Amino acid sequence: MSVFNPSEHQHIRYNPLKDEWILVSPHRMKRPWKGQVEKPSEENVARFDQSNPLCPKATRPSGKVNPDYEATFVFENDFPALLDHGPSPDSDSDSLFKSAPAYGTCEVMCFHPWSDITLPLMLKEEVRSVVDKWAEINTRLGQKFQWVQIFENKGAVMGCSNPHPHCQVWASSFLPNDPCVKDRCQRKYYEQNGKPLLLDYLEKELLKKERVVLENDCWVWLVPYWAVWPYETMLLPRRHVLRLQDLTEEERDALADMMKKLLTKYDNMFEMSFPYSMGWHGAPTGKFLEGDNSHWQLHALYFPPLLRSATVKKFMVGYEMLAQPQRDLTAEQAAEKLRNLPGVHYKQSGN
Amino acid sequence: MSVFNPSEHQHIRYNPLKDEWILVSPHRMKRPWKGQVEKPSEENVARFDQSNPLCPKATRPSGKVNPDYEATFVFENDFPALLDHGPSPDSDSDSLFKSAPAYGTCEVMCFHPWSDITLPLMLKEEVRSVVDKWAEINTRLGQKFQWVQIFENKGAVMGCSNPHPHCQVWASSFLPNDPCVKDRCQRKYYEQNGKPLLLDYLEKELLKKERVVLENDCWVWLVPYWAVWPYETMLLPRRHVLRLQDLTEEERDALADMMKKLLTKYDNMFEMSFPYSMGWHGAPTGKFLEGDNSHWQLHALYFPPLLRSATVKKFMVGYEMLAQPQRDLTAEQAAEKLRNLPGVHYKQSGN
Ligand SMILES: O=P(O)(O)O[C@H]1O[C@H](CO)[C@@H](O)[C@H](O)[C@H]1O
Ligand SMILES: O=P(O)(O)O[C@H]1O[C@H](CO)[C@@H](O)[C@H](O)[C@H]1O
Repeated sequence: MSVFNPSEHQHIRYNPLKDEWILVSPHRMKRPWKGQVEKPSEENVARFDQSNPLCPKATRPSGKVNPDYEATFVFENDFPALLDHGPSPDSDSDSLFKSAPAYGTCEVMCFHPWSDITLPLMLKEEVRSVVDKWAEINTRLGQKFQWVQIFENKGAVMGCSNPHPHCQVWASSFLPNDPCVKDRCQRKYYEQNGKPLLLDYLEKELLKKERVVLENDCWVWLVPYWAVWPYETMLLPRRHVLRLQDLTEEERDALADMMKKLLTKYDNMFEMSFPYSMGWHGAPTGKFLEGDNSHWQLHALYFPPLLRSATVKKFMVGYEMLAQPQRDLTAEQAAEKLRNLPGVHYKQSGN
Repeated sequence: MSVFNPSEHQHIRYNPLKDEWILVSPHRMKRPWKGQVEKPSEENVARFDQSNPLCPKATRPSGKVNPDYEATFVFENDFPALLDHGPSPDSDSDSLFKSAPAYGTCEVMCFHPWSDITLPLMLKEEVRSVVDKWAEINTRLGQKFQWVQIFENKGAVMGCSNPHPHCQVWASSFLPNDPCVKDRCQRKYYEQNGKPLLLDYLEKELLKKERVVLENDCWVWLVPYWAVWPYETMLLPRRHVLRLQDLTEEERDALADMMKKLLTKYDNMFEMSFPYSMGWHGAPTGKFLEGDNSHWQLHALYFPPLLRSATVKKFMVGYEMLAQPQRDLTAEQAAEKLRNLPGVHYKQSGN
């Protein structure tokens, strides 16, 4: 029997942050694809379009008119999934029909006044002001809410209905599932090892090197050992940082620089504006601000859906919905592929 | 402040089978949709096509030739995610880089020799032979494997690459995440209450009625209180049943009948062949066959992605991937909508 090779032989891997497993079947990349293909992403976006509710000076569905903003612009979502008020359910004592109150607020943040630009093509200073705004939002909404989820859905394939560069913030009175599980797992690891899980993990990844894609003085970009999506990655500060607002000036500059670089690599993968969902996870806020959160480490996650080409994505369906996530190429193969991509954006190289 | 109304006011609901919460935001159905629309599903499928590897007498990618089958037909997947052999990873003592062996087998089952038919349009006897085959596969693969996941991905939007009516079976040497969590939750409930969770749940749903869609002598089809997908449903036997092979003759007939009815309602929703992923969960097999599994109750789950129309699905992206599932309409609204749909298939009504 041959020797085990993770790039060739199936195995399951454990995600210590979420206490779950994923199935890795690298031999499966060989299968042909006859399924659905996605429409290539829209390349002809107008820079300003008064009918686009995210543009400067446009009128939004709520009737409010956007200012003629010049950098970032934050406003309340006109169709929020979470409201800050309203009646709450009675507590039902039956554990099979349990509901609980949910309050919150939803905001939208435009990254730039232009609809035809994306983060990797923005100036470093412009990306830096996005970082500052994230930190500001996390501080502001974190006063009141237990969890502030900053996330960006990019591309039509990720359900994003507007090409204008923007992200969303959903802040809630409760700790959602994922952060809740991560809080538990990181706390347990910290109690057992006296160090934050993700700092130990980062240290080991920096020795192993095989999953690290990019590094700078303050940040490391890597494919986590337990990645689920084909080109899923994680962005980690080198220092122990709890929340976005705790980042130093230097770390914010370095983050802007790293984001431009990593998103350039993503775009260069299939020479298209790469779709993904991304978001930040850090120590919880609200009433948790009082407690000890030393077990937490701030990190960003990128979940891009594409697998084979600009038009063929990985479907997380049947087996994944009912049993367990499954991936085809390994985390190491993905990291190598990302490492080898050019560092200059395809739209800006040569001419 | 007005009185709480679950069809109007946001709240979170608890899923006792998986120990997690979902966010319900019914007020959000009002938002307009300008995002991606799906291609309507293919309606012009040839009944026989020799180049389709699922057709009778067709040659598959492996070079094997299908028999001229007349009912169901089961074969080994030519591109299996799980193989029954191969080297296994060394156990790494580091909890941050943990992997484990994964063995298994993947099979495909065609429901019918025709490519242009679907379960709701098949004869009741034909659906019954699908049920019998499922039970047979679960018995056969369950001798060797801990978990036999039977699932069907239907429609291009669910990554299904072949319109020929078929399902898949992935059997594994390990208990995948989802079944593992359900095993734990059902066991705990059983220990505390002396009755299987899903039987208690069913009893209460039959009294409440508001989430029940269809009933017959042996089965109940309902929208679970904690449903995530817009029209997610669960199919439960009335009797305490551990596995597909434990179903009586009468229950199998009643299941075939129920499946035809429920899938007819699904198709009538948007007058199209309704896409979904579905699958069976029952007591684990393999080495678990020896143990006590009284806490388990067999059930099927249907996860359809569509929300608003034949072409607009619910995107489980940013917030859902990073924080927690979110749904717009409530489980009760979905059940009512399903209940009110005609019982005659739109393709068979009229003349
Ligand atoms: O085997 P298929 O149908 O080609 O593949 C489909 O179902 C599998 C099991 O849910 C998924 O892993 C794949 O991403 C999906 O495309
Ligand atoms: O608010 P949007 O961008 O219209 O909506 C999008 O992101 C939300 C948060 O991830 C999802 O719940 C929606 O399904 C998706 O379409």
